[in-house]
Amino acid sequence: MALHPVVLCGGFGTRLWPASRPGRPKQFLPLTGPNSSFQETLLRLAGLGAERPIVVTGPAMADEARAQAKAVGVEPVLLIEPEPRNSGPAAAAAAAYVKALDPEGVILLLAADHHIGEPEKFCKAARLAAQAASAGRIVTFGLKPDRPATGYGYILPGERLSEGVFAVQTFVEKPDPETAKRYVAEGRLWNSGNFAFRADVLLAEMAAFEPAMAEAAEAAVRAASGDGGVLRLDPQAFARAPAKSIDYAVMEHTKCAAVVMADFTWSDLGAWPAIRDAGEPDANGNVVTGEARLVDVKNSLIRTDGPLVAAIGVEGLAIIVDGDAVLVCPLDRAEEVKAIAEQLKARER
Amino acid sequence: MALHPVVLCGGFGTRLWPASRPGRPKQFLPLTGPNSSFQETLLRLAGLGAERPIVVTGPAMADEARAQAKAVGVEPVLLIEPEPRNSGPAAAAAAAYVKALDPEGVILLLAADHHIGEPEKFCKAARLAAQAASAGRIVTFGLKPDRPATGYGYILPGERLSEGVFAVQTFVEKPDPETAKRYVAEGRLWNSGNFAFRADVLLAEMAAFEPAMAEAAEAAVRAASGDGGVLRLDPQAFARAPAKSIDYAVMEHTKCAAVVMADFTWSDLGAWPAIRDAGEPDANGNVVTGEARLVDVKNSLIRTDGPLVAAIGVEGLAIIVDGDAVLVCPLDRAEEVKAIAEQLKARER
Repeated sequence: MALHPVVLCGGFGTRLWPASRPGRPKQFLPLTGPNSSFQETLLRLAGLGAERPIVVTGPAMADEARAQAKAVGVEPVLLIEPEPRNSGPAAAAAAAYVKALDPEGVILLLAADHHIGEPEKFCKAARLAAQAASAGRIVTFGLKPDRPATGYGYILPGERLSEGVFAVQTFVEKPDPETAKRYVAEGRLWNSGNFAFRADVLLAEMAAFEPAMAEAAEAAVRAASGDGGVLRLDPQAFARAPAKSIDYAVMEHTKCAAVVMADFTWSDLGAWPAIRDAGEPDANGNVVTGEARLVDVKNSLIRTDGPLVAAIGVEGLAIIVDGDAVLVCPLDRAEEVKAIAEQLKARER
Repeated sequence: MALHPVVLCGGFGTRLWPASRPGRPKQFLPLTGPNSSFQETLLRLAGLGAERPIVVTGPAMADEARAQAKAVGVEPVLLIEPEPRNSGPAAAAAAAYVKALDPEGVILLLAADHHIGEPEKFCKAARLAAQAASAGRIVTFGLKPDRPATGYGYILPGERLSEGVFAVQTFVEKPDPETAKRYVAEGRLWNSGNFAFRADVLLAEMAAFEPAMAEAAEAAVRAASGDGGVLRLDPQAFARAPAKSIDYAVMEHTKCAAVVMADFTWSDLGAWPAIRDAGEPDANGNVVTGEARLVDVKNSLIRTDGPLVAAIGVEGLAIIVDGDAVLVCPLDRAEEVKAIAEQLKARER
């Protein structure tokens, strides 16, 4: 069984403004250390003995993706989406590409913008997931929640299928706070948005539930242009694929769903509090990147790409200095950054 | 009676970091509008029909002082102090210079870093002060306190001397908070640090209480170099003057002290809260200079010399973006900025 890593690297992420900008999506930013989460995702594969990674990205991001991969010694195949159409068409196109190359190949589908604390635990879970995938399952990585977050999908594991892998009994996307609390108490798992599946299995399941998506993605690969290192999906064909996530297109319907119990520290780096949580706090709970003078500052996130930040007497605050913008915002209101970022984007147009 | 305005323009002001820096003292910054407080001080004289202004400043600030004065159409005489030695020697040197020019001349001694809301009220008080000064009094401008500040001197007015002018019964510098409250209730006045006196009267009083200061300042003027527009005080002579404020050197001892009741809005722009108070607040009490996006922000001071500042859900905060530094600090802790500014200055050395 050959394992083909596919990294979905076409997203944006307005909630990390002012670090993430329209021309500089969050997966390319060094948010938790010297490397970007895209680079960390590639480096994490080293322990798996996997095939050449495939990176699905947009035309405007391809050069950055290639350069960042090269900087960590990886030369991936680039699958260029003519336009972003959510994760379903991207996964299907990757599956069609892999299926033509390796009819029984297993895909490890990974987000480029996640943080994982322990690469060795990730590799162990990925191996177990790949085994179950090889046997025909579409396996998602389930993580033990550390809080009743309402932004994730919750999985109730059912029957044990193999070591560490269970059938999915029910899957509920984004519950309300009360339900989320109950789910955490019941031992349901977060759906991390990373998957393992056989290329042919994904395409067959998609053909059953979203035939237009499967057809469009396969046609976009057949009519793609480019050489071995870069494959440009055919724009006309790809545009026919409904823009839906793989969760809605396949996971909600398939009887093949399974979950691998993963025990690594995980974050989708969704907003500034996640960046703080993924960092190394000092004795006062502050996570600092760049030069800062802090007097009586607690549990805050300070990031600056140049100017000195001096802060006095604040708690739980995000102070982000990036290029031509400065953000000051309580970490517990960091979701509201999205609205500001979108306003500014609209103004630039 | 000729009135000679003397503007003391040699200070620094570390509490307005990061706007004020060692090479860019606060009197030269546009803190309350398009002009600096030094420029506002010169412009305020227009209504007085006074003589050519005299600006006492340091060698490193002389060019900036001349340029800023020129920008508002004023060409002052520059009296260059070889080193900063507090306000006593500066006032004495100005007095010695004016006395040689105009033996009965009256000096209006003004700080370059104060904000005054109503120039016409200032001019009225200055005229009354100058009349009393001409009759031999050393007149300070007394202001009705709007809070029990502990950072100022408090004056208890005594016998009425002339229109708006009273003898000083007692003067107490920087009381504790309880005493300050009592003083405000008793109707004592703040000493604003601006004065009117005859040049010869100040020198005579100083000769009585601080003879070394008077002698050194007079010698520094006699041995000064330069032409009509710029006078460089003699370094050896000036260095002999004890470095004391005019308050300690003369006002605490003299029997000639008087106070003019002034009713203009006044601020010494001492720290960031004073800059907020002197500005035009929006409907949420925010004073904003530069480009900002504010969401649920109240009673805050936002200043930026370029980058966009986005703030969400903060109250009573100072956010100051200036050159290579960013300050975030509750306005009620803005005094602590001084310590950071001094640390940074020490590091630069």
